[in-house]
Amino acid sequence: MPTMLGQNQYGKAETRVVRITRDGRTHHIKDLNVSVALQGDMADVHYSGSNAHVLPTDTTKNTVYAFAKEYGIESAEQFGIHLARHFVTSQGPIHQARIRIEEYAWDRIASVDEPSHEASPDTPAHSFVRTGQETRVTQITFDGEIWEVISGLKDLTVMNSTDSEFWGFVKDKYTTLREAYDRILATEISARWRHHWSGDDEPMPDWDDSYARTKRHILRAFAETYSLSLQQTLYQMGSRVIENRGEIDEIRFALPNKHHFLVDLAPFGLKNENEIYIAADRPYGLIEATVLRDGAEPRIPLDLTQL
Amino acid sequence: MPTMLGQNQYGKAETRVVRITRDGRTHHIKDLNVSVALQGDMADVHYSGSNAHVLPTDTTKNTVYAFAKEYGIESAEQFGIHLARHFVTSQGPIHQARIRIEEYAWDRIASVDEPSHEASPDTPAHSFVRTGQETRVTQITFDGEIWEVISGLKDLTVMNSTDSEFWGFVKDKYTTLREAYDRILATEISARWRHHWSGDDEPMPDWDDSYARTKRHILRAFAETYSLSLQQTLYQMGSRVIENRGEIDEIRFALPNKHHFLVDLAPFGLKNENEIYIAADRPYGLIEATVLRDGAEPRIPLDLTQL
Amino acid sequence: MPTMLGQNQYGKAETRVVRITRDGRTHHIKDLNVSVALQGDMADVHYSGSNAHVLPTDTTKNTVYAFAKEYGIESAEQFGIHLARHFVTSQGPIHQARIRIEEYAWDRIASVDEPSHEASPDTPAHSFVRTGQETRVTQITFDGEIWEVISGLKDLTVMNSTDSEFWGFVKDKYTTLREAYDRILATEISARWRHHWSGDDEPMPDWDDSYARTKRHILRAFAETYSLSLQQTLYQMGSRVIENRGEIDEIRFALPNKHHFLVDLAPFGLKNENEIYIAADRPYGLIEATVLRDGAEPRIPLDLTQL
Amino acid sequence: MPTMLGQNQYGKAETRVVRITRDGRTHHIKDLNVSVALQGDMADVHYSGSNAHVLPTDTTKNTVYAFAKEYGIESAEQFGIHLARHFVTSQGPIHQARIRIEEYAWDRIASVDEPSHEASPDTPAHSFVRTGQETRVTQITFDGEIWEVISGLKDLTVMNSTDSEFWGFVKDKYTTLREAYDRILATEISARWRHHWSGDDEPMPDWDDSYARTKRHILRAFAETYSLSLQQTLYQMGSRVIENRGEIDEIRFALPNKHHFLVDLAPFGLKNENEIYIAADRPYGLIEATVLRDGAEPRIPLDLTQL
Repeated sequence: MPTMLGQNQYGKAETRVVRITRDGRTHHIKDLNVSVALQGDMADVHYSGSNAHVLPTDTTKNTVYAFAKEYGIESAEQFGIHLARHFVTSQGPIHQARIRIEEYAWDRIASVDEPSHEASPDTPAHSFVRTGQETRVTQITFDGEIWEVISGLKDLTVMNSTDSEFWGFVKDKYTTLREAYDRILATEISARWRHHWSGDDEPMPDWDDSYARTKRHILRAFAETYSLSLQQTLYQMGSRVIENRGEIDEIRFALPNKHHFLVDLAPFGLKNENEIYIAADRPYGLIEATVLRDGAEPRIPLDLTQL
Repeated sequence: MPTMLGQNQYGKAETRVVRITRDGRTHHIKDLNVSVALQGDMADVHYSGSNAHVLPTDTTKNTVYAFAKEYGIESAEQFGIHLARHFVTSQGPIHQARIRIEEYAWDRIASVDEPSHEASPDTPAHSFVRTGQETRVTQITFDGEIWEVISGLKDLTVMNSTDSEFWGFVKDKYTTLREAYDRILATEISARWRHHWSGDDEPMPDWDDSYARTKRHILRAFAETYSLSLQQTLYQMGSRVIENRGEIDEIRFALPNKHHFLVDLAPFGLKNENEIYIAADRPYGLIEATVLRDGAEPRIPLDLTQL
Repeated sequence: MPTMLGQNQYGKAETRVVRITRDGRTHHIKDLNVSVALQGDMADVHYSGSNAHVLPTDTTKNTVYAFAKEYGIESAEQFGIHLARHFVTSQGPIHQARIRIEEYAWDRIASVDEPSHEASPDTPAHSFVRTGQETRVTQITFDGEIWEVISGLKDLTVMNSTDSEFWGFVKDKYTTLREAYDRILATEISARWRHHWSGDDEPMPDWDDSYARTKRHILRAFAETYSLSLQQTLYQMGSRVIENRGEIDEIRFALPNKHHFLVDLAPFGLKNENEIYIAADRPYGLIEATVLRDGAEPRIPLDLTQL
Repeated sequence: MPTMLGQNQYGKAETRVVRITRDGRTHHIKDLNVSVALQGDMADVHYSGSNAHVLPTDTTKNTVYAFAKEYGIESAEQFGIHLARHFVTSQGPIHQARIRIEEYAWDRIASVDEPSHEASPDTPAHSFVRTGQETRVTQITFDGEIWEVISGLKDLTVMNSTDSEFWGFVKDKYTTLREAYDRILATEISARWRHHWSGDDEPMPDWDDSYARTKRHILRAFAETYSLSLQQTLYQMGSRVIENRGEIDEIRFALPNKHHFLVDLAPFGLKNENEIYIAADRPYGLIEATVLRDGAEPRIPLDLTQL
């Protein structure tokens, strides 16, 4: 046989599960999109169609729903850990499980527009509005021994309206760009960070707290960096996370440079003093890099976004 | 000639304009997507291709950018009024202008995670994060005499995790749905409201304040209504707006019923006590209605969303 | 009560139904997305939440599936007519039904790449590849007496790489566009046409044949018109349909002008002789108009696309 | 310094270029979406913001347009090879270039509906309709010595309405799926194949011919495989390509199992004899695998699609 089977995996993608927890009249909500990918001893199903080693993807979907009841959803990461452990330990032919989860955040309507952000006493504590800002993501991989937990976020759109320059770059025969000494810097942050935690004998991070603090460091670093290039801003965001969050060994960013071009108003007898911009769609610059704790091994894949 | 030309309009759609206003080191941002549609004496261009009456759509785009400089962007509505007046009064063949605007909201990064929601003194006041919740929309129509200003929002996703029932409905031979006495009610609100204001001699509403208060009434009515049907919730949202906002004569909603189905956990020996739900994509119920001030004439079009 | 209920409708949107018909080993496929909107005596459900007049949207979904079995799917239009008649005649409180259908086309894999476009004898006649070109749409409205059948298409992207000019337009102080004597004309056609047929006593058109011929007229008119403006091309497409298809009284187009800008290659010492273009996303011109049979009443809504 | 920079790359993404070639009145069109990613000696720009090694992404965009004129666009692969060679050989700090291209296909309107698929003599040969079926993709990587050319396609939706079974699978306590002996098998094919060609001294494949033949093998294998699992169908598609296309060493597929569920019509007194199906959106099975020529090294990344 001149051909052979290479790496393969299968599972159910995008199982949407919502869990409501009732604490009297106060409700809590967890809203996840869960994708399972299993690897193992799967040559036969590819060669002959024998499903003797195949746990149906429908079953992986059912397991997501059953586990939401049996274990609750403490955090996306903890929920993924329960799922990954189950598939690897309960199914002989399964040698590795990878669980990817998107989480959608909800605010209480009761607290909307309240200056204190405390709940209004008149508005029920079971009414929610979807936050809509970034989407939180996680990926749990388990091979029966070693855990790898990568967390992150996407679709977090940010802008600095000043304190950004771009000059001193290489010029070749195709270069027409002018140097800029005061420009808008805007991007839609996609980030993934890998935790040091890898074994059941180590204490597990508080995943929700870690997420909140990491996001805050990213936002603050974006805001507080006087930027000479988006690469520099990226490195500042990454190194601030590595320096401040001991539980994180590696972080990777994909940062589209969402160009805002100054409109030429001269034909209309007007002067554009860095006021009026075109928000452009395509093309866009795309800046990608990993920042690592000294000595850590890079393991986050290169492509966070895909054409 | 057995055929004739009917209603027609043309213009530039989706001109993306961002305006930065600098108040020392504190910046303000307006981020709009502007679409212009012009009507008038346009038979010739359709019949013969003569462009003698046609102001190019490229010019309407330029006008959006120039007006952002000349008039600023006080509010989406006020900006649309400047544009509509210009096209109708400066171009003889143009008899009516319709300006549609989407507005994207930004928060200051400085205030993110601050308990007081006050800006952190360390973080620059020119750093923003896109809110991501709803999109604000407006449509200005002007025929040289009468103004019609419709404002609204879309993509505002809300959920009540209890206080919703659905029973007592018609059963025919195709009915299999069970009655529900405690269900999730979730929807993605799309709403458009028409203002009473229609003439230059009347005092104009404070558009931004009106928007903020109307949105708040919609959210609060959604949260505070014990719902026997989504239609009832819709009417409560609409009538609360009409009763509390004297500047608004008419409001229309398109409310997809974003179904959350209870998962049957019995096959796994588990009991689902209104905890674990499937968030379904399609199909979805779609509930649409107009609520009017007594005596007002309905003028908002029937279809806010389109298949 | 200072507020009142205006126009309202409800139903299940986007019910996806696929029907396979087996003619021995040769299969046929119909692939539809069906949305039902019902109107009638629905004040109570809005005012009080009483569902006594409400046929659940779940039932309208069930009816779509049951009718696909009971009546088959001869064409999207004929299927919509069965559904609309059922809801209006079987439910007292329902006074009007509007059925919207999208249809996705499939080709046989057997005929792909065959020079004759005949099926290859080796390849099974139950294997299909989705066409992917335009989406066919229809909207059936029935009030118990009068039928209105609007058919159409969307997402049909076309381009003329020459035989298009644009000059002689109005210039005002915001005009910077240069006149063009040889440009690309590209658009994504969205069209809706209304049939003359409105009563059960009249012979019904052959809907599939009518669709195929109308699409062909639109494509040919686009290709064969030497264009001085997109409005002129629109009118040529519309009038050719009205002149050649006696069953159609009215047609409306929404044509985004998908701009292709000549790249300025002069800075690189190159000459761009109408060869190299930027395909731009936003903004785009948007040209909309109705063409009518002389004496026909316009009834297709103005907005085919929505911001 | 406790942190260090890991893998990084940058460039302009999604440069949209259309090239028209004029052969008298007959025109030819190439319609590409080009993304450039460059790697090299880029530590400084991350650490200090020095752009001394940075060729601006704006320049990479300009280069795409200039090369479309200078070299033409023979095929997506050949065009990417010109670009990659240029960046690596002309810029000292650049050590590797990766060019990704999407190509959109256009048919001549003249040949639409012609039984012979020959052009109609009446219809101009500069009028096109976008095919809309699959999108062709390629990725060229060059480090100054070794070439890697991965080609592929995405969004090719196919269906077998019979000759598919699924049974004999593992059952655990969460399994409720029934075995199926005649089901619909539908998927949206995403495939990437890597060519053996890697050096300038080897003869280059005819990229367009190779693409057309590979796509044909994939479609035929999908259609002609009596399927006991989607994994089996995947392997048949892959091995047929490897066996028949000597220029290809490796192919990877990501195949969402687009579920079509039989509707339960029993409540309506109807029998569903494999006729009426629900086309479901989410969740979906996702089957991924690589098929290799014996002895070849796997180099296509695992994730073709991303959550």
